[in-house]
Amino acid sequence: MNIIEPTLLLDKVKCRNNIRSMVKKATGAGISFRPHFKTHNCREIGKWFRDEGVDKVTVSSVKMAAYFADDGWEDITIAIVFNILETGKVNEILKSGTNINLIVDSPETLSVLKKELKYQVSIFIKIDTGYNRTGILSDEIEKIEVVVKAINDAGMRFAGFLTHSGHSYKATSTNEILDIYNDTLRKMGSLKQRFRNEYPDIVISVGDTPTISITPDLRGVDEIRPGNFVFYDLMQLSLGSCTSDDIAVVLAAPVISRNTLRKEVVVHGGAVHISKEFISDPSGRSTYGQPVILKADGWEKLSGDSYVSSVSQEHSIIKADDEFFDSVSTGDVIGIVPVHSCLAANLMGSYLTLDGERIMRDRS
Amino acid sequence: MNIIEPTLLLDKVKCRNNIRSMVKKATGAGISFRPHFKTHNCREIGKWFRDEGVDKVTVSSVKMAAYFADDGWEDITIAIVFNILETGKVNEILKSGTNINLIVDSPETLSVLKKELKYQVSIFIKIDTGYNRTGILSDEIEKIEVVVKAINDAGMRFAGFLTHSGHSYKATSTNEILDIYNDTLRKMGSLKQRFRNEYPDIVISVGDTPTISITPDLRGVDEIRPGNFVFYDLMQLSLGSCTSDDIAVVLAAPVISRNTLRKEVVVHGGAVHISKEFISDPSGRSTYGQPVILKADGWEKLSGDSYVSSVSQEHSIIKADDEFFDSVSTGDVIGIVPVHSCLAANLMGSYLTLDGERIMRDRS
Repeated sequence: MNIIEPTLLLDKVKCRNNIRSMVKKATGAGISFRPHFKTHNCREIGKWFRDEGVDKVTVSSVKMAAYFADDGWEDITIAIVFNILETGKVNEILKSGTNINLIVDSPETLSVLKKELKYQVSIFIKIDTGYNRTGILSDEIEKIEVVVKAINDAGMRFAGFLTHSGHSYKATSTNEILDIYNDTLRKMGSLKQRFRNEYPDIVISVGDTPTISITPDLRGVDEIRPGNFVFYDLMQLSLGSCTSDDIAVVLAAPVISRNTLRKEVVVHGGAVHISKEFISDPSGRSTYGQPVILKADGWEKLSGDSYVSSVSQEHSIIKADDEFFDSVSTGDVIGIVPVHSCLAANLMGSYLTLDGERIMRDRS
Repeated sequence: MNIIEPTLLLDKVKCRNNIRSMVKKATGAGISFRPHFKTHNCREIGKWFRDEGVDKVTVSSVKMAAYFADDGWEDITIAIVFNILETGKVNEILKSGTNINLIVDSPETLSVLKKELKYQVSIFIKIDTGYNRTGILSDEIEKIEVVVKAINDAGMRFAGFLTHSGHSYKATSTNEILDIYNDTLRKMGSLKQRFRNEYPDIVISVGDTPTISITPDLRGVDEIRPGNFVFYDLMQLSLGSCTSDDIAVVLAAPVISRNTLRKEVVVHGGAVHISKEFISDPSGRSTYGQPVILKADGWEKLSGDSYVSSVSQEHSIIKADDEFFDSVSTGDVIGIVPVHSCLAANLMGSYLTLDGERIMRDRS
């Protein structure tokens, strides 16, 4: 590959393996798989899911729903508490016959939907299982009942309960992640139990790549919506969600400067390429990415302790061990495993596969 | 304005005032003004600089140089240590007669330029005045002499010394920022002194918005290259570089959820809109943005203590004081002053002026 500027490399084999593994895990548990497409946001990669039999997806904005609906996806959950200003855009998508699931956490939204939506949608109630971002706590039954009533009053279909246990990203061990999954399952299961007599078709839908990757047996939920697993990244590796061999994207970045005194390697490739996301280890060290050696057929982990110690707009600084430092010259292109592949892929806008194919994300 | 989704608002009056003020400051000191265009990366905003008589610019990548050269900018400094893999792209720009200044911090780069560049360029030596990212320390005279010799051997023009005192962003007081400026001036001045007999035309060029905004008298340098001042942001405000009235961009973000127990307001608008940049105050509180009230003619600061306490991919959570919390409903659109406008503007890709004009950044 003739790479001369920061470029997001995609290992298609690893990516398709990640997709296949997750399909298998869902199938094995007899549950529904509705992958979150915000990580890749790319129709071409969407096709790789279709190839494995996936026929329903999750997105994080109405705009993303329109992008995938235009590509023929007919069953889409917009997994962000619905922004009532976007009913017009949702009507546009519904017009073509696409099934849309919206999520709500307050009854007020339903009165707007009743007034402004021209077609029926299904509604999930967002449950807060401990992440404390949006949603109703699972024990706030009265609030939930008010929303269920509002769904009925609006003439919409009550689809069930949906949560994103994003607090799994703050866990410090895989046991803690399993605890979060089990706690989520208990809370969501009890809600289903409570409402299933009246609404026998309701489902419970859970997301987040860490709990879904780490929990061996997913029976008990109806639907999973992980997204990041399609690429994984350094954060997932540090959480125990994947091995380093599962990570399917790295930023190819040209070396522009070396500092012999500080044993630092500086590359072109920074916050506008991989974002400023970092992970901190117990010693207080912050890591913004992991250098790897690029090979013709992919990339190879370094044996030593080199890491990206800081990023600015266009630069990353790598604290290098002696072996890595001595092996690298200006003009070399190395790889940086991103801490958060969702943000890196969003910033980069396209992927270059190892066989040289350029794949575009939605750039509208 | 009929805003329904995350949108970057630009107050053109404030922005043009920021440009005019900086032009005046440079003119008053009798020095050259070569603004960094990476912050706005937009030809339309470039025109506002032209209107004030600016005729030379700074960019942070060869790609950005090509974008502005195509728009008629004829004197461009590419202020990132030159990536030797991009000589072909530089030749393309030089072909049209544009003057290009490259920056280097090692002699090896020059032998590549000698071999591969088809036209002459001017070369700045990158000096590290304390930021410790790239560049040669100002007292490493032997190293500097080796690079000067390499510039001559390559048949290129030695333009002078260039630095970016980015450690000003870590300062905790304006006095510390003034100290950094004075230290920078002393180091750069002594280099000029040392080499001016042999190279009477060399200049010293300094960057970074904090030192340039805060230092009252810029005499002593030859050229300034600030960039962020065109918009300013919350980080600059916290450093003392600007007042809140100078900040020219905010993210308009729809309110999607409110939590009465935690007094939190959640908006659609997160890491893919304003980045994950944050500032920490001495108490350890991290702020990812500042909510403001949107008005027909701009935005208005809140009186209380509300702030963005966390961001995820599409969401920001605002810890709201009682007054702000009670004043906001789902479906309202509020403003978020970004911590780092360079990153927010890069993520958003376009600006909406207060009179409703959509202005595009380079989206290639």
